[in-house]
Amino acid sequence: MLRVQGKAVHQCDSGWVPVFVDQEQSISLMSVGFLLEKPDEAVVWRGPKKNALIKQFVSDVAWGQLDYLVVDTPPGTSDEHMAVVDALRPYSPLGALVVTTPQAVSVGDVRRELTFCKKVGLRVIGVVENMSGFVCPHCEECTNIFSRGGGEELARHAGVPFLGSVPLDPELTRSLEEGRDFIQGFPESPAFPALSCIAQKILNEAPVGLS
Amino acid sequence: MLRVQGKAVHQCDSGWVPVFVDQEQSISLMSVGFLLEKPDEAVVWRGPKKNALIKQFVSDVAWGQLDYLVVDTPPGTSDEHMAVVDALRPYSPLGALVVTTPQAVSVGDVRRELTFCKKVGLRVIGVVENMSGFVCPHCEECTNIFSRGGGEELARHAGVPFLGSVPLDPELTRSLEEGRDFIQGFPESPAFPALSCIAQKILNEAPVGLS
Repeated sequence: MLRVQGKAVHQCDSGWVPVFVDQEQSISLMSVGFLLEKPDEAVVWRGPKKNALIKQFVSDVAWGQLDYLVVDTPPGTSDEHMAVVDALRPYSPLGALVVTTPQAVSVGDVRRELTFCKKVGLRVIGVVENMSGFVCPHCEECTNIFSRGGGEELARHAGVPFLGSVPLDPELTRSLEEGRDFIQGFPESPAFPALSCIAQKILNEAPVGLS
Repeated sequence: MLRVQGKAVHQCDSGWVPVFVDQEQSISLMSVGFLLEKPDEAVVWRGPKKNALIKQFVSDVAWGQLDYLVVDTPPGTSDEHMAVVDALRPYSPLGALVVTTPQAVSVGDVRRELTFCKKVGLRVIGVVENMSGFVCPHCEECTNIFSRGGGEELARHAGVPFLGSVPLDPELTRSLEEGRDFIQGFPESPAFPALSCIAQKILNEAPVGLS
């Protein structure tokens, strides 16, 4: 997605140097993918090994001064999630951004994520509904492929903010497939206003320098 | 999806009795969901506890005589996957059915699943491409929301069978949302022939009594 496949992580005096996505070094990235010899290699690791690496990604990477640190986790409430919460606790993280798709089966899973956040004392910044409706580019009619409204209902039920719905958008997928800059390349796409609005809500809560 | 929420698992002399989905008892089911007190409860379990339960689900459930045992795993190559492979090895499982969505990011992940299967000696029955194109119910035009063809290319590249593509289908989602029988209720839906064809290919490989 960020055109950094095959890049390597180097070591400096203060730890691992993350991979910089752009020349201005405005986005830096760390992933287990950079540590594998071959891209097809399966990371067959049990919990303790994953936990140790997550800790290292927080403490042993020369992140420098960051405005925001975003950790993208898999679904669930297991080793990875506990390790991330434990590793970030000393830095008072802003909270969890919880993403669901609209249908009941996903909302059910994500409800358990919210219980997890409560249990570990992690604030929920808000809920986002992804894959929320599809506007046909041929006829402009909207179809709710995965049902609709589950995210908003979940947020209301759990008493946490609902930040918005992101529609299914072939232009967003294309931009990710081709590693293009979505903001520059697709400002007219239906997902664009949805994503900007969600980002703005989060920025309002956590202006740079306060996060 | 199967209208069994809230059902309980009972104990008999030969172990846990699975939950029966239909009156004919043609489908029986076991899930950690049946063991929770509240449906919102987060299963905050680390690897070893998950592994132990997976083993129990194979050995301590009174499954009786089964034609097929289907294990639905999360994505990844971690504790759950190793535990399932270890627990089923004595029963010579038929293999893994590997599901991907069409876009490069998913195919990349699933390529690592195939490496995992090879590493642990699990045969790959085949690859299925899910969310493969969407035919607008209003204008009948097809849009490849998540790109297209990644699953087939992956299968060719890995030298394993490609079993077929399942389109995005709001009727399939609706059937799952409402817990309705898709085969009975939506035989005209676009996902129906795709799913039947994939199922038939698997049945041909493993007729009842030989699996």
